[in-house]
Amino acid sequence: MKSLNIVKIGGNVIDNQDALNEFILAFSKLEGYKLLVHGGGKIATKMAENLHLKTKMIEGRRITDDHMIDVITMTYGGLINKKIVSQMQCYGINAVGLSGADGNLILSEKRSKKDDIDFGWVGDPKQVNGKWLRSLIMEELVPIIAPLTHDGKGNLLNTNADTIANVVGVALSSFFDVSINYCFELNGVLEDIHNQSTLIKDITYEKYQILKKNGVIVQGMVPKLENAFDAIQKGVKGVRIMNHRSISKLEKEYYDEFTTIH
Amino acid sequence: MKSLNIVKIGGNVIDNQDALNEFILAFSKLEGYKLLVHGGGKIATKMAENLHLKTKMIEGRRITDDHMIDVITMTYGGLINKKIVSQMQCYGINAVGLSGADGNLILSEKRSKKDDIDFGWVGDPKQVNGKWLRSLIMEELVPIIAPLTHDGKGNLLNTNADTIANVVGVALSSFFDVSINYCFELNGVLEDIHNQSTLIKDITYEKYQILKKNGVIVQGMVPKLENAFDAIQKGVKGVRIMNHRSISKLEKEYYDEFTTIH
Repeated sequence: MKSLNIVKIGGNVIDNQDALNEFILAFSKLEGYKLLVHGGGKIATKMAENLHLKTKMIEGRRITDDHMIDVITMTYGGLINKKIVSQMQCYGINAVGLSGADGNLILSEKRSKKDDIDFGWVGDPKQVNGKWLRSLIMEELVPIIAPLTHDGKGNLLNTNADTIANVVGVALSSFFDVSINYCFELNGVLEDIHNQSTLIKDITYEKYQILKKNGVIVQGMVPKLENAFDAIQKGVKGVRIMNHRSISKLEKEYYDEFTTIH
Repeated sequence: MKSLNIVKIGGNVIDNQDALNEFILAFSKLEGYKLLVHGGGKIATKMAENLHLKTKMIEGRRITDDHMIDVITMTYGGLINKKIVSQMQCYGINAVGLSGADGNLILSEKRSKKDDIDFGWVGDPKQVNGKWLRSLIMEELVPIIAPLTHDGKGNLLNTNADTIANVVGVALSSFFDVSINYCFELNGVLEDIHNQSTLIKDITYEKYQILKKNGVIVQGMVPKLENAFDAIQKGVKGVRIMNHRSISKLEKEYYDEFTTIH
């Protein structure tokens, strides 16, 4: 099977125009089949502020009410997505921007209330149209996926970008040798979060259990790694956690510069 | 060749939620190959207002500065486009929302200054990726096109939706028997704009010249009809000017209820 790199960039890259430009150029040079999933960053929060809408967060999660889903649809599905696409086109990459509603790409279930907390228009993916995505990729198109899915009932749903990278990776693993590359601000998983030289170069499931037990892996990294092991178990070949600047080194396999999960 | 209906809906339908819902349902029931081009309506102007940006119009045309192209990208390419797509999916239509940047669908030239007026990020289409659009349509996908194109240099361009319907129709006329249906608030071209019963049921180029000379066809209808005759000359089979409610009658060929250009 041919290889496919799925790259996920988070909010910190989106929020920084220089970092985003640098990333898009590096991504455009990456050879072989590829696909990008982007997060939303602070643009939605800032836009909501400008529109005098209050952003409600509970346990670090955005409450997506009727107004907020519109802001998210505009900023993630419109502004961020189309800007990335047009810039990719400038670098000769035939990008196509998609939400999960387009081509019924990702069908989700609206998250139900939990402990009386209503997250609103938030969705958890349950079905990916991998066959169509494959056909786009085989036509040399590069999908740029926004963190938006739909419920099949006419509603758009705010959806975690890591989760999208994950489910898309699993769906495409029947057709490609899939690697998922989660890019963020650090070099990878660190022993000491304040010291980039303490990079843990590879993590097996056994090692992860120990690192978690010892309090080395905490907070946001826990669901990221759980997602990674889940994807590997479901057919994804490899998962890397890395800095967005390392994307240019993916082909050269500088395994020293990021964390490989296997 | 198989038939393809291109339907263009304007701002008045977009701005009225009930009319839009009614239209989407009718469009979803239309049989055969089809494609939708939507305008922007007043949502961008309203959004700009809410963001305290001033909308500058010169001769009825929006000046699209750096801030305004972002608002247009958000509202046309994000909010309106994705909402239509998710609603179509609810009616069982496998819609895919596209801007002209996606898949290099429509490459435009940035409009140059004219009489010292700089329209800003406004584009005039010069190339359509009809082959890709055809392949999507043949896969039973229904493209929903936003009035946004790109310049190949990394910039998005605000583009007239009538013009998009036109150039897309011409590009697809090598593969399909294309009909373009321009929907708006009236029943078609009227002898007396205040009297819907004065519908002109068919217009040839000769008849158009006379109607224009006699002052029956004026203002916004002039470029619409010029576009229509241009499209027909370049291979489009037929053009209709109609009310969005008549879309459900297209298959039944109630030729009495709209204007046919030939």
